[in-house]
Order: sequence, then structure tokens, then C-alpha cells
Amino acid sequence: MGSMNENESITTQPAGDLDVVDAWWRAANYLSAGQIYLQSNPLLRHPLESSDIKPRLLGHWGTAPGLNLTYAHLNRIIVQRQLEMLFVCGPGHGGAAMMANAWLDGSYSDLMPEISLDAAGLQILLRQFSYPGGVPSHAAPETPGSINEGGELGYSLMHAFGAALDNPDLTVACVIGDGEAETGPLAASWRAHNYIDPAKDGAVLPILHLNGYKIASPTPLARIPRDELISFFHGNGYDPLFIDGEADAPHEVHTHMAQTLDLAFDRIAEIQAEARGNAHAPERERRWPVVILRTPKGWTGPRTVDGQQVEGTYRAHQVPLPEVRENADHRAQLEQWLRSYNPDELFTSTGAPAPALNSIRPRGALRMSASPHAHDGITSPLQFPTLTPYAVETTRNPVGTASATGAFGPWLAQLMSQNPDTMRLFGPDEVESNRLSAVFEGTDRSWASTIVDTDTHLAPHGQVIEALSEHLMQGMLEGYLLTGRHGLLTSYEAFIHIVDSMFNQHAKWLEASRSLPLRKPIASLTYLLSSHVWRQDHNGFSHQDPGFLGIVANKQSDVVRIYLPPDANTLLVTMRHVLGTHNRINAVVAGKNEQPAWLSLEEATEHVRDGLSIWPWAGHEPDLDVNDPAASTPDAVVACAGDVPTIEAIAAVQLVHERFPDLTLRLINVVDLMRLHDPAHHPHGLPGEDFNALFTTDRPTIFAFHGYPSLIHQLTYKRANHEQLHVHGFKERGTTTTPFDMVSLNDLDRYELASDIVGRIADVPDPDAAEAAIREWQSARTDARDYAYSHGEDPPWITNWEFRRR
Amino acid sequence: MGSMNENESITTQPAGDLDVVDAWWRAANYLSAGQIYLQSNPLLRHPLESSDIKPRLLGHWGTAPGLNLTYAHLNRIIVQRQLEMLFVCGPGHGGAAMMANAWLDGSYSDLMPEISLDAAGLQILLRQFSYPGGVPSHAAPETPGSINEGGELGYSLMHAFGAALDNPDLTVACVIGDGEAETGPLAASWRAHNYIDPAKDGAVLPILHLNGYKIASPTPLARIPRDELISFFHGNGYDPLFIDGEADAPHEVHTHMAQTLDLAFDRIAEIQAEARGNAHAPERERRWPVVILRTPKGWTGPRTVDGQQVEGTYRAHQVPLPEVRENADHRAQLEQWLRSYNPDELFTSTGAPAPALNSIRPRGALRMSASPHAHDGITSPLQFPTLTPYAVETTRNPVGTASATGAFGPWLAQLMSQNPDTMRLFGPDEVESNRLSAVFEGTDRSWASTIVDTDTHLAPHGQVIEALSEHLMQGMLEGYLLTGRHGLLTSYEAFIHIVDSMFNQHAKWLEASRSLPLRKPIASLTYLLSSHVWRQDHNGFSHQDPGFLGIVANKQSDVVRIYLPPDANTLLVTMRHVLGTHNRINAVVAGKNEQPAWLSLEEATEHVRDGLSIWPWAGHEPDLDVNDPAASTPDAVVACAGDVPTIEAIAAVQLVHERFPDLTLRLINVVDLMRLHDPAHHPHGLPGEDFNALFTTDRPTIFAFHGYPSLIHQLTYKRANHEQLHVHGFKERGTTTTPFDMVSLNDLDRYELASDIVGRIADVPDPDAAEAAIREWQSARTDARDYAYSHGEDPPWITNWEFRRR
Repeated sequence: MGSMNENESITTQPAGDLDVVDAWWRAANYLSAGQIYLQSNPLLRHPLESSDIKPRLLGHWGTAPGLNLTYAHLNRIIVQRQLEMLFVCGPGHGGAAMMANAWLDGSYSDLMPEISLDAAGLQILLRQFSYPGGVPSHAAPETPGSINEGGELGYSLMHAFGAALDNPDLTVACVIGDGEAETGPLAASWRAHNYIDPAKDGAVLPILHLNGYKIASPTPLARIPRDELISFFHGNGYDPLFIDGEADAPHEVHTHMAQTLDLAFDRIAEIQAEARGNAHAPERERRWPVVILRTPKGWTGPRTVDGQQVEGTYRAHQVPLPEVRENADHRAQLEQWLRSYNPDELFTSTGAPAPALNSIRPRGALRMSASPHAHDGITSPLQFPTLTPYAVETTRNPVGTASATGAFGPWLAQLMSQNPDTMRLFGPDEVESNRLSAVFEGTDRSWASTIVDTDTHLAPHGQVIEALSEHLMQGMLEGYLLTGRHGLLTSYEAFIHIVDSMFNQHAKWLEASRSLPLRKPIASLTYLLSSHVWRQDHNGFSHQDPGFLGIVANKQSDVVRIYLPPDANTLLVTMRHVLGTHNRINAVVAGKNEQPAWLSLEEATEHVRDGLSIWPWAGHEPDLDVNDPAASTPDAVVACAGDVPTIEAIAAVQLVHERFPDLTLRLINVVDLMRLHDPAHHPHGLPGEDFNALFTTDRPTIFAFHGYPSLIHQLTYKRANHEQLHVHGFKERGTTTTPFDMVSLNDLDRYELASDIVGRIADVPDPDAAEAAIREWQSARTDARDYAYSHGEDPPWITNWEFRRR
Repeated sequence: MGSMNENESITTQPAGDLDVVDAWWRAANYLSAGQIYLQSNPLLRHPLESSDIKPRLLGHWGTAPGLNLTYAHLNRIIVQRQLEMLFVCGPGHGGAAMMANAWLDGSYSDLMPEISLDAAGLQILLRQFSYPGGVPSHAAPETPGSINEGGELGYSLMHAFGAALDNPDLTVACVIGDGEAETGPLAASWRAHNYIDPAKDGAVLPILHLNGYKIASPTPLARIPRDELISFFHGNGYDPLFIDGEADAPHEVHTHMAQTLDLAFDRIAEIQAEARGNAHAPERERRWPVVILRTPKGWTGPRTVDGQQVEGTYRAHQVPLPEVRENADHRAQLEQWLRSYNPDELFTSTGAPAPALNSIRPRGALRMSASPHAHDGITSPLQFPTLTPYAVETTRNPVGTASATGAFGPWLAQLMSQNPDTMRLFGPDEVESNRLSAVFEGTDRSWASTIVDTDTHLAPHGQVIEALSEHLMQGMLEGYLLTGRHGLLTSYEAFIHIVDSMFNQHAKWLEASRSLPLRKPIASLTYLLSSHVWRQDHNGFSHQDPGFLGIVANKQSDVVRIYLPPDANTLLVTMRHVLGTHNRINAVVAGKNEQPAWLSLEEATEHVRDGLSIWPWAGHEPDLDVNDPAASTPDAVVACAGDVPTIEAIAAVQLVHERFPDLTLRLINVVDLMRLHDPAHHPHGLPGEDFNALFTTDRPTIFAFHGYPSLIHQLTYKRANHEQLHVHGFKERGTTTTPFDMVSLNDLDRYELASDIVGRIADVPDPDAAEAAIREWQSARTDARDYAYSHGEDPPWITNWEFRRR
């Protein structure tokens, strides 16, 4: 694909081309309206009849004419400059326009031959829109060339910026509706050029489409004076360029729009040429262009319907003529409207786009609806460093300690060094706090603004992007992944809830994409959640929330994975695995604090492969054969998932064993949470017989879990022995306190677990001794808590505890 | 409380007062640093010893000096103008500063006498900070005068705007950290003055505190040129006023800050006077002031530590001197730092604030940390209209239809009319789409910007606020509720996930507040979620998500309620109930489409009171005694929760009954979902024996549920007969299709339910007939689906179904 050659002079387009642009626009408008209304007679070759009209009129006209205008003009730019361009469609329900243009430029029939460039294909195109088994009315995975869902608004511009990273020859044109511009995520995106290096990244051209109204209300940005709008964009670091479409003179906009877009693309080329050493810095300050396109909502549609103004008002948002099937007047008005575009001039006798449109139709991969950036998946697989040099040395007696994220950081640094153009780390200014600062040994934070002496690790181009907006970080990562690259998002566990709904929408995108031939696999979206619920004791209740895992577990099983590595080496192995997967979302929760490093790299590798396993050295089950766990039956199973619950569970087993050496206890650690799920519901679900062999069918399991207990019940309620599964986890009890008090407040501490283990075993040999032990353990809990409240820290008999592996 | 008298001329404050402001600032800085470090020796009456230092050094110094400076200067304004003021502390971890000021102005000891105005109280104040059982390091429910959590950033300004609504005499000073300013929710808040009527609402004074850094990185807004910053605020409709604190001349800032704040408050007074008819419009455009306060991070703290610059860099973010307990040099530096404030001049010999501070200490309720707006809960209870005139007429044969939200709208309109100054409706431009437009008969949308001819229902003051930002709507509602008023948020069900984490944080606020004597109850936060998962068939997968209920169910049971009214009258009764509750979060899900109106108002009232009940007319159980359901045992129980599942469940029972008139079926509808929960876990949980009487202990229950089936299992896993509970709900199968195809895709349709009912009954009298019926029903599902895919709408035998009540 070509990029602009800066040495070519840019010639003004002859007026003739603007007639073609206008014809393209009319054709796209015709097809957009047609998708809302027509199930047959797509070329109006006979007068409209009631039966030509779809039974349910669904879809949104309001935004279509502006999108079509933009698409047509960008085609002119692409053909003229032979530019790689991606079109991000922000406005909600812009699907009809995107489909229309994808058909007109031939991408659609390339991708789906049945939607052919003739009347038959046209009929399918129109009918499938907002129709059962068809395509949604907003840009979606089904929409050729799209990397943005138009269903939930707010993410277009962050997707655009993510797509532009490390794509120096790409320009991403991003149309933003004035409704969408009200959302928080969009508002936080304007300044994302702060993370764009004009030398090595591509460009984003935001096009704010002011059509004045959203569903039922006006939009603030369409109502403020022009000087305020100019200030707003100056204040966000842009150079605003205005295009005004007058309701009464639709055709006159073309000249102005062509000149303005030429100017915008000249400026982008100038900025890039200067940054790439191909030109001197211009005299003016570097400011990226932004286009403000003001056109009436539902432009070129019905002016008035039943005496009420429609064009230019919120009434044009959806279906301007609602009763076309029943009401002959409405139907006549629709026919008049459709014919106003002169379809006979726009389509050939067989129903193909008129050859006159060819001069602004880009060829092959330069067509925006055929962009390989949008469709072709992973551009190059990640090159992985080996894990061995990064593994933590383990000792057994006592078990040594390590910070899990601290151990992962240097490997991540090496991974990023080996993949300098295709791997990025995103974080809401929590990379250092999550102890991943080793990455700054090999790269920097991207920062295109002023850098001063006291700054560290800032540079115009770095592989780390940190902005204090989880939304922006998630959205830019999505844009980066959707265009075929690799990345990782690290966040505090509690605050990842901020992007619950972005997670949901990305999961839905992946769920829908899997069955679409047009979309090749993309790299998985991986979260490394640290500073988790059990180690935010000092930051208090607002920082304590493990509920994101429940959000993840609700999504389709082919898409989601949850990992709770219990130590440093297991985190390393887990991350090595998940970063090599595709079309998934991986949530990995791991601590940053020093904690026991239970497993060697080899053990961790096996453990992650199995997803869950018996840790024979942590239990007490003399007859156990790990290859045939069904051959023996312990008095109780102690399960754990999550690093802190693992510590408490192992400590609890130790307490019980010291007191009751004859009781047999089996400790199972779960790293891949979906192993617990019903195999009918998740591909990782452990088969019933294996589950029963591990967890028994008649002994109690005491489960120490990182998150809300309900999640374990949700995953296991169909398991044979579910009645005897007793889960300890986060009970929504949080405060500013010590680490041990946090687990204790939630009944997840070793003393409570030990009490529960002994209390649940049906036939303890000496019930009196059991009762006495439980009393003592309960009193030890109270002592530990009292100590913390009087000393301000946990007692040494908790923090200095030494673990042993036999 | 007094408000400003506009006729008084504003005199410039004598320089002497600024010395007092400086002394206050120093005292607050001393106390802020002291909270991080000291557990004893609060007045430095002897040289610092290791044992005076807390064992864990937690807390954040960086933001404190700027907050203290602002608080001190606002005190001067309050005393001078006798203004009601609320201080919203946006910066994360600003808790130490807030506590310091609350102690200095005497509010703290009023609220908690043990934190007395002497050395003993001071010792508690310092020690409790970030200490087990103490207070968090950010503003929190425990913080006097606060209505904002500083834990999760982004919501300060929306809280401030919500608090200002309908509080004409209140000015809300809102300090926004430059880190927080990067978040989406904050970015979406700047323009919220669009919903502020200067005649009838109070004012918000945003104070952007540029201290340059967040945790580890610089902030973009602190790095852009001043002209860009000016443009940014002009572009957001503000008049920016700058205050620059020079690191080398901290004291010189006072004069400039006093003049600037005088100017800001003069402008606010001018705008309000003009809008309230007390003055002529000024010649310049109406622009609210915003203050940009630039001071070094950690100002007045250690300049350098161990040779590295700390003041003015990100290293001042948290604990500038980290090793004070062990390292004597650090300890000496801390002592020098603390003594630099001259504590002996700032505190009396007994440890009280020096009398010299009195001249800028507001009295009583004018103290910001004692604001009744923040503490005193509901200002006046809602006046409720009776429901009767709004009830939907029901018929029984066939059952009539109504839109639930359509029936609720007129009652809501009347509720708003009766409570014009204390009730607001918020929505992300979905009030009309959710069929609540009846509210516009009595009030308008607030809109302080330009209004044009084609607009409808816009006015400078209206009780409805609509902005296309769920974040802003949630945040303004929170601010409105937290200051004692009432409100309702309506949204599409899927998109309420956008505010999952705001919901979480508000729930945590309520959970923590309940045990705090300083906080009186506030009105519950109620969500009316419509356009729900089962009726977004036309909008596609992105609009189909019932997962918010799971987020709600995770929170502490005293706080959360979930209601799924099955019809119009039940929605009316539910809303009448929940809007009268306090300190809760109510999630109500109800459809907007025409659907059967099953219950009369009287029946609905009983049904909501009971939370769930048998609908004898919908089942077939001749021996049933509704007052003693345990006296009979049906062959199966059919349960349902949610309007669409109720329709399908009732239709399924009808199908089964027509075919197998001898089978006995009991239909139970659940409106209050928490009735299913274990009574040990939720106050609404149905006692075990009542549950067993209704659901039996040995018969299958087929449960048709609105949301993810896992939620029902989560609530009921401890119930006796849980093994025989079979839940049909959303299985994450969505697309663009018809309403019936949506339920069918997720196995929630009448045919699948009927098949499951018959299939689950252990001893059907005629197994061959049962098998034949199931085959036919399965084929009817396929037929209905095929019809929809070929006709574009559901078949008439589904949509024209008539329901009968016997």
C-alpha cells in the first residue's frame, strides 16, 4: 500500500471530481434510506408498493447523510493521494451508511459474493439490514472495514488512536457524533494525541459531526458559539477546520469540504514530514487538524412529515416516515425522497454502481471497507523470550518469597524489546505501583508533550502508555489489538470495574466475530490486575473489590479465561501462555507484594497446563497417588484460588495438621478458574469424573477464594458434591486496616479456615479436642486483630510465619 | 444560613487576614504531615523519637498543601461574605488535609468529642489516619463535610454540580486534581453548567489544582502552554482565573489568591444577581469562573531526600521521607520539616488551635466540614401522589395490555410536580425512548444554553436532566441525593454497566455510612432500567445485557434491592415503594412495550408487599390453598421473574395444561428478587419453611428469569430443593432479530419452557404423549423462528396470543 510522497505537489481536484463525489453521496444516501425501508424493488424499477416495504421499520436515518458525505470525500482523498485510510464510524446507528459505502466500493461483494453488484445483491443488502439473521443498524463486527461498535457510544476516538499507534503509513479518519461527544470516554480521548509520535505512529483525523440532536434532545456542542468551539479544540491541542452544510444548498458543501479535507491532510503530511526529518519544522506550533462538520440531521431526507419539521431536528433520528407500509401518502413521500437522488443515474441497468463513480473508488486494499488493518488480524506473532532466566529461585525450607509482578516485569521488558513495533503496555499510571517498572529499563512512556528535567522514562515514542483513564487505556488497547497487534493492560483490581461495559462490548465483539469469515483472529485482550482486594488494606474500602471476575464469567465461554496464579513463577507461565492466545479476554489477578514462591518454573508449567492440581506437599494424605487421586479419600479437601487465599489455606492445613496429625487433608490449588466450570459450559471445564476424583463425592471441600464466594458456586453448582462445598471469599467487608485483618474480616484467614475444616469433617476422632482447637483458633484470630488495632501492623506471628515444603 | 447580600460592597481584606490565612495553612500542613507520620508527640513538645513514628507509613502528602491552601482561603471568603459553602475534595488521597481542616475549624470535635481540641484529641486525630479501625487516606464517608470519595477518581465535579441543583444559596467549591482531570467522567463534567440555572440553582466553583504529577507520571494539563489552558476553559464555557504558587515564595501566593477568589465570587454573585432579576446583565457574556491553581506537588515539604528532588515532583506523591522510623537522618529531616511550620505559634499550650486563627474560622453550620448539606440527610420527605388515578384498568378475558413505563410516566410527572424543588429525573437522553415523556407535561429538560424554535421541552430550569453520559447522570444524581434530595435515573438496561463502578462506590459509601453517626440517612438511589435485554432485538447484541443485576447482588444486603415488576400496576407500586426508602440502591427493571397487564392495583400492592407470590389463576392446581401452599403439592413449579419471562412462563403453563389437563402446575411470580436469597444473607430472604411451602422440597421448579441464570443459582444455592431448580435466562446469545427469536435463542420461550416442564416431571402419566408433545413444541419453536427469518417479524400466533385469567 502506498503512502503519501511528500515531494509531490498537491494539485487541486478538478471540479468534475466533485460531481462524482456528489453522485457517490447520493448513491450512498439512496442505499441508506433503502436499507431502512425496502425489502424488494431496490432500484425503484416500478412504483413503490406496500409489499416492497419491510414489516418492521427499524434503523436510523439521521446520521447517515453526514457519514456518507464524509466517506465519499475521503474516497477522493485516498484516490488522489494513494493513502492508507481506516474509517472509524462513531455515531450510533451509522450502520446503514457503512453498509451502503462498502457495497458501493465493492468490498462487500468481495467479502460476501451473494451481496453482488447487481439488483439481486442489492436486494439482499437492503433486506438484511435490521432484519432477523441480518446486520445491526450500527457499525458492528459484521460491518466491513469497521473496528468500532456503534451500539454503546464513546469509544470511537480511542479506538482510532489505538489503531494509529505503530502504523506510520496509516491515517485513521474518525467520525464522532455530537451525541457521542458528550460521553466521558470520548471527552477523555481528545488529548490522546499526547501519546502519538508523528515520526513512528500514524495519524488520527477526528471529524466531529455536529448534526445538532441525539435521540430526543439537542447536543451541547452544536449549540455553543463558534468561538467557543474553536477554543475548545485549541484547548485540546488541535487546529479546528470547519465545514458547514446548509440545508438549502447541499451541493455547495462539496467544494468547501474538498478544500478543507485537502488542508487537513496537507497538515498531517507536514507534521509527519517534519517529525520524520523530511522537512523543516513549520513556523506555526504543531497542532493536529480536527474537522468540524456541521450538517442538518437527516439531511436530504423529508423536510416535513405530517406538517412537522423533520430534517434538521431530532425527529430525523430514526425512521422519518414511520407509516410507509400502511399510509399511501407516506409511501408516496418515501418514493419522492428516494427518487430525488436520481437512482437511474447512479446504478446501471443491472443494478451495479454506475461507472461514473469509478474515479473516486479506491482500489483493492485502499478501500476503507476492505482495510487489512480492520480485517486481517495479527500482523506478526509475538516473539517470546524464554522464561527460564526470569524464573524465581525457590527454596523449600523455608519457602522463599518473591513479588509476582516484580518477577514478571523483567520478562515483560524483554518481551517488549523483542517486539518493539507490535507490543504495548497500557496502564492508568499504575505500572510502577504494580511493580512493573522493570519495563522502563528497555522502553519509555510515550509522551508527545513537554518533557522536563525531573521527568523519568518519558519520550516521544515509548511502548508504554499511561493516562489516568481506564477508559482511554482500554480503548486504545482495543484499537491496537483490533488492528492486529499485541498488548497488555495493567490496573488495580478494584478500578477495572470502570471499564466493565467496555469489557462487555469487546467480549461481544469477539463473540460475534468468531463466526464471521471476514474477521481473522486478533490477539487476546489480557488484563493483569494487581494491587488486589486483599492487599489494599491501607487504601480502604473503595480500593477493595474483586467483582470484575464475575463480569468476566458471565460472557461466552469460548471468549473468557480467568487465572489466579498463586506465586511468581506461576504468573510468569500464565502470562507466557495467555499472551500467545487469540480472540479471548484473559483476566489474570496477581499480587505485587512479597509472598511465598511455592513452585519452581517446572512445577508452575505443569500447574498452569493442568489448570488446577493437588499440591501433595501442602496437604497430608499419606496414601495419595497424584496420578490416581480417586484411589484415596481424604477427610477433607482444602481448595484455594488466588495468592492470598493460597497462603491462608496452606497455613490452615498446617494448623490443623499440627493439632490433628491423623486427619488426612488434600490441598488443591486452582490457577485456571474455568477448570471448575461445567465442561458442557466451558471448554476448560474439568470432566465430571476427574473433578470427582480430585474433590471426592462425599467429603467436604473448604474453598479459600480470592473473590466473591458466589462465583465459585456459580461455576460448580452442577458438580456432584456441591452440597459440601464451603467457600470463603470476599464478603464485602472492607476498611482501612492491615492485610491480615482484611482476610480475617471476611472469614478467609487461616484460623477461620482451620476451624471450618475441622468443623466440617463428619467424624473427627476426638470431638472435644476439635472443639477446643476451634476455640483456640478463634481466640487467636481475635488476638491477631487486637494486636493490629493496637500496634498499627499485623503481629509478627502472622507476618513472620515460615512455610515449609516437605 | 446567610447568603450574600448583593448590595453590600465588597471590601478588600486587610493584609492582616492574609497572615491568619497563612497561619491556618501552616497549621493544616503541619497536621497533614503529622497524620502520615506521628502516633505520639503530636505537638513536638519533645524531640522526635523512633517510637513517635507509626510502624506503617501510609498516606499521601503530595496533594495536601494545595487543598489546605484552598480551604484556608475559602474560610476567609465564607467569613467575609457569610456564604454557605460545600468543599468537594477531588484529589485522590486528600483525606489528611480534609481531616486537618475539620479539626482546625472545630467540626471534628463537635461530631466526635473524643477528637477534642487539645493534645489528647490531636493525638487521636493523627494516629487514626490510615490506621486499623481509623480513617482512610482519601476523602470518604468518615470525612466530615465530604460528599465525595477520593478513592476512585473522576466524580468530584459531577457531585458538585448535583449538590448545587435547587440549592440557590449554596456555592460548591470543587477542587479537582490534575490526575483526576484525565478521567473520562471528569472530562464529561466540565460542561455540566449547561444544566445549572443561575436563578434557581446554586453555583459550582471548580478549582483545578495543577500540581504537575499523579502517581508516577506528569499530567497533560500541567504541561500545556497557558494559552492552551485558557482556550480549554473558554471552550468549556468558563472564564479561567489563574493562581500560581512559586516554590520559592510560598507566602506571596496569598495576596494573589485572595484577589482571585474575590473576583471569582464576585462573578458568581453577578451572574446570579442578573439571573434573579437583581441586577442588569453585564456587558460580557455569561461565563462561570474556574480557578486554575498551580502549586508544586508536596509544596513546603522536603525539597530533596537522599539527594533526589522531592518537592515539585512525583516523588512527593505519597510519603516523602519513607524511612523515618529506622533512619535518624530522615527523622531529623521530618522534625525540621514539621518545625518549619512553627507549631508553637499555631497551637496553644494545651494543644488547641491558636486563637489567632479565629478571624477566618466560620461559625457553626457555615464551617465547610460541618455543612448540613453534607451531613443532615433528607431535607424534606417526598410528597407522594396516590396511585389509584394512575392505575391501569385490567381485564381478565382476554387480559388487557399496557406499557409499564408508559403507565408510570404520568404518576412520575405528578410526583415531580408535587416536589418541584427536591425531585429530579436523570437520563442519558433516554427519557422519551423509555416512554416516560409524560413527565414533560409538568416540567422540562434543564438547558442553560441556546434554545431554538424546533426544540421541545427545554427550559433554563426543569426537573429533568438529560446528557448523553451515564457517568454524568449517575454522578449528578449522587450529588443531589447526598445533599438530601430525591431522584431517579432511567437508562437502557445494557448501558447501565457503564456506571458499574460508580454504583459500586456509591454502594460502598452507603455501606460505610450506615455505621457513622455523622451521616443521617439519604434517599435511595433508584434505577429504572428499561429497553431491556429482551426488547432490544432490533438494536442487536451490543444492547442486550442483563448483567447489572449481578453487580448489584454482590453488594452488602442492607443496601441493595432488585425488583422485576411483571406489569404496569406492579411497576407503579414498586416505584411508589422504593422512592420512599433511604440509604439503599434499588434496581428496577421494567419494559416499555405493550404487554399484558396481569394485576389490578390491589393485587399488585399485595404482590409487591409479599415480594413473590403464587398466581393461582395462571397455574393449574385444584387443591391449592394460597394461604397454606404446603397443603398441596403440584407436579411442578413454574417460577418467573421479569416481564417477558412472565409472559413466556404463563404461555408455557397454558400449553402444558391444554395438552395435559391432569398435570398440576403452580406458577410463582417473583417481583422482589432478594426474597429468593438466604434469610441469613439478606433481610428480604424468605424463611426456609415459607420457601419450601411455595417451591416444595421434592418437585422440579422451572424458573424463567430475566437475567443470567447464574444469579438465581447464586441466590438459592442453599435452598433445600436447589438440585431441582432449573433456570432459563439470558445465555449470552444475542443478535439483531425479533422479540420472540431473542427468547427462543436463549431457551426462554414458551415452547422450550413447556418442554422442560413436562420433561422434568418424574412420573408423567403418559410418557409417549409427553415425548410427542415435546417434539411438537420443539417443532413449533423452529416454525416460529423460520417465520421470523422469512417474514421479518414474529408470527401472528405468537404476537396475537390472548391470555386469559380464570
